[in-house]
Amino acid sequence: MDKLSVDNLLGIKNLNKSDIDLIFKTALHFKDIINRPIKKVPSLRDLTIANLFFENSTRTKISFQLAQKRLGADVVNFSSSSSSVNKGESLVDTVNNILAMKIDMIVLRHPNPGSPFLLSQNTDSCIINAGDGSHEHPTQALLDCFSLKEKLGEIKDKNILIVGDVLHSRVALSNVYALNLLGANIKLSCPLSLVPRDIELLNVSVETDINKALKWCDAVNVLRVQKERMIKSYFPNNREYSILFGLDINKLNRIKKDILILHPGPINRGVEITSDLVESNNSIILDQVENGVAIRMAVIYLLASKMNFSINEQ
Amino acid sequence: MDKLSVDNLLGIKNLNKSDIDLIFKTALHFKDIINRPIKKVPSLRDLTIANLFFENSTRTKISFQLAQKRLGADVVNFSSSSSSVNKGESLVDTVNNILAMKIDMIVLRHPNPGSPFLLSQNTDSCIINAGDGSHEHPTQALLDCFSLKEKLGEIKDKNILIVGDVLHSRVALSNVYALNLLGANIKLSCPLSLVPRDIELLNVSVETDINKALKWCDAVNVLRVQKERMIKSYFPNNREYSILFGLDINKLNRIKKDILILHPGPINRGVEITSDLVESNNSIILDQVENGVAIRMAVIYLLASKMNFSINEQ
Amino acid sequence: MDKLSVDNLLGIKNLNKSDIDLIFKTALHFKDIINRPIKKVPSLRDLTIANLFFENSTRTKISFQLAQKRLGADVVNFSSSSSSVNKGESLVDTVNNILAMKIDMIVLRHPNPGSPFLLSQNTDSCIINAGDGSHEHPTQALLDCFSLKEKLGEIKDKNILIVGDVLHSRVALSNVYALNLLGANIKLSCPLSLVPRDIELLNVSVETDINKALKWCDAVNVLRVQKERMIKSYFPNNREYSILFGLDINKLNRIKKDILILHPGPINRGVEITSDLVESNNSIILDQVENGVAIRMAVIYLLASKMNFSINEQ
Repeated sequence: MDKLSVDNLLGIKNLNKSDIDLIFKTALHFKDIINRPIKKVPSLRDLTIANLFFENSTRTKISFQLAQKRLGADVVNFSSSSSSVNKGESLVDTVNNILAMKIDMIVLRHPNPGSPFLLSQNTDSCIINAGDGSHEHPTQALLDCFSLKEKLGEIKDKNILIVGDVLHSRVALSNVYALNLLGANIKLSCPLSLVPRDIELLNVSVETDINKALKWCDAVNVLRVQKERMIKSYFPNNREYSILFGLDINKLNRIKKDILILHPGPINRGVEITSDLVESNNSIILDQVENGVAIRMAVIYLLASKMNFSINEQ
Repeated sequence: MDKLSVDNLLGIKNLNKSDIDLIFKTALHFKDIINRPIKKVPSLRDLTIANLFFENSTRTKISFQLAQKRLGADVVNFSSSSSSVNKGESLVDTVNNILAMKIDMIVLRHPNPGSPFLLSQNTDSCIINAGDGSHEHPTQALLDCFSLKEKLGEIKDKNILIVGDVLHSRVALSNVYALNLLGANIKLSCPLSLVPRDIELLNVSVETDINKALKWCDAVNVLRVQKERMIKSYFPNNREYSILFGLDINKLNRIKKDILILHPGPINRGVEITSDLVESNNSIILDQVENGVAIRMAVIYLLASKMNFSINEQ
Repeated sequence: MDKLSVDNLLGIKNLNKSDIDLIFKTALHFKDIINRPIKKVPSLRDLTIANLFFENSTRTKISFQLAQKRLGADVVNFSSSSSSVNKGESLVDTVNNILAMKIDMIVLRHPNPGSPFLLSQNTDSCIINAGDGSHEHPTQALLDCFSLKEKLGEIKDKNILIVGDVLHSRVALSNVYALNLLGANIKLSCPLSLVPRDIELLNVSVETDINKALKWCDAVNVLRVQKERMIKSYFPNNREYSILFGLDINKLNRIKKDILILHPGPINRGVEITSDLVESNNSIILDQVENGVAIRMAVIYLLASKMNFSINEQ
């Protein structure tokens, strides 16, 4: 069996092209399984996984949980609000304690960029990054690219546009790494105040005229306006953002071609995208969500097969 | 096999008499099972259910979870406090995302009346209403009536009294619908400020003298004083409410007959009912709780059998 | 099969020496199991356990959950933050409701000392105390002593030192009871303001000079400084506490012998103990955590075998 080049999924930056191909191939197999009446395989029934979420989450948490249950793994959940993290314990101590209880794999969401890396250096467990601050969100980028490939056939040489708050977006950074590996052309459209410094070093060009950018692209990934991450004001207000960079039917009609629309969710309807586009045929937003479970099954399965762990091939 | 006339359980208002009979018959079977040493059947082991609780709950949440586990279903829980609902996403978007992960059934508790209906119109999933604001709480009414029938033999022509804050009570409204279908006579006793407008259109008469009302009835359902739902003051204070409408041993001794006492919980001991009555032989409050699990198993089982879903008849 | 002398685990005070020996023997067996690749036994697959946590917890909650899953039990979790406890319901009512749903065993963490005892008097369920205020934390003491025995061979006549806030520590009180049963000599070292009244009645001597105390002992259990339990100021500040009673390499070097270091966690690194000692060879802190799962499996298993419950000896 093919193997990943890594023992943890800390970020897309650590993967190579073959890793992504292997994850996609495996996810395709699992997508087939979760569309059967019996959506489960008992492959990992002797693996114990802890989901440690130090930030709020609905879809990512449920998606990981479902992926784990459908692989038959034992799951322990905890979130910061009900844990003793506020008793002053360090993250490494928390996790080492959990590992001493013989937990094999940790899915970590944490507000601090680099915390999954810190853990992987200080513990023996397998770590999956489920989002670390404004750094990376690798499974999101994998499911975005998997969904793109499903619709576009191939990602190589396709034109992919990212619209929105790239500066604060772990989704954007992970997507840029993944799209580069897969050979796409990447453009970014957003207010200049939200363009990250040195973004051109990652082969990303910036186009502040969204109409030109839309005309250029085959697919557009619309990012959520994340007011909760902005420590100062980057644009006057939602209404102006919406007029200039929000996707609506007028902007789409003007380009006279069909493009795919992605959104990582949760959606601020009427801010970064209008309701009619969310529900239009161009939108593959719910495909993204469905593929998320398959991608996470694949990642968990492939990382488990790198461990000293016998997979149950029933 | 008999089938329900509905595909969702949005409220008792949508059921007919045969539906209730079928649910009771099925619940009787499950009650038998959960009183065995091995309390589980694997009927629904390929069904995935999400419990979405946007309001606090102890007993209803645990009761649904146990019902689901005892049917062998896979369960995903989430509550609003740790979810991303406060990131501004619409309820329909949240649920559609969850459904895209191939979840078959949703148990929803939500503060907004009508939200389960809204969902059933906008998603493909099977929806069970676990309480929507001050509208309906259908499984509570079903377990109340099931418990009454267990003790009274038949509900037809029996006199059932509801005491308390009917105006804010989803339990009361669902009970009124159910008791009407089952042919009971219904009276309501509470301060006039808490009588809902046009309640007589639902065949409910009002008796503000609780002593007369108690003398009339075969069973009394004592509602919780729900301070948290009252947006203004409906009566001077708990002490006065307690003297006038609270159930105590003096009021019961005065009527010189045995009546059944129900309470949906959680109980404010000493406010709407005294401790000695909660623990008296007249009280069937813990029977209600026990029957709740059987009723919820029946509802989930019968709705699953309406779906494209093969039940495991081991 | 040997049986415990008790039907609940309310505190170490209620156990005798044979109970502890039986728990240790059983835990040894389970420790062996959780170190195999397949870490589960299906012994209790028909037992339903509710974990009721009315205080925040990470390690104890996860440890109990893992113990339960590895015994194959069905588990229902709830914590006060998302429950309806704040609707004014009494603890006994909450628990009786849960029991009416046919739950066999309750693991209770509660801020009020004596609440597990109260429950055991008022309900039919088997109760395990997972920490009640500053009273007892019996499974912690069992895992501490089990870890000591593993390293020291025998606990009888060994010198065990407890350093820290004994006044507010349920861990300390449970340890004192357990160490007395097992025949250890017990000394306490802490600021005089934190010495509990009449502690000498429990065969505990006090030594405020930590250097003398360390020189005397074979093992030291370092308690967490629990600022959140102190209703007034018991010592000037963390820095002074740390200089006088915090464990560091200088204090250890001075005594010129090896002693075992225990800590119940979560650790305030740099306050009651320095980082280098946490990670030194003397530290058995992570052994404690690992043994915690085995001890909790043993306790649950032995209490289940006292109930009218058939254990699945596959």
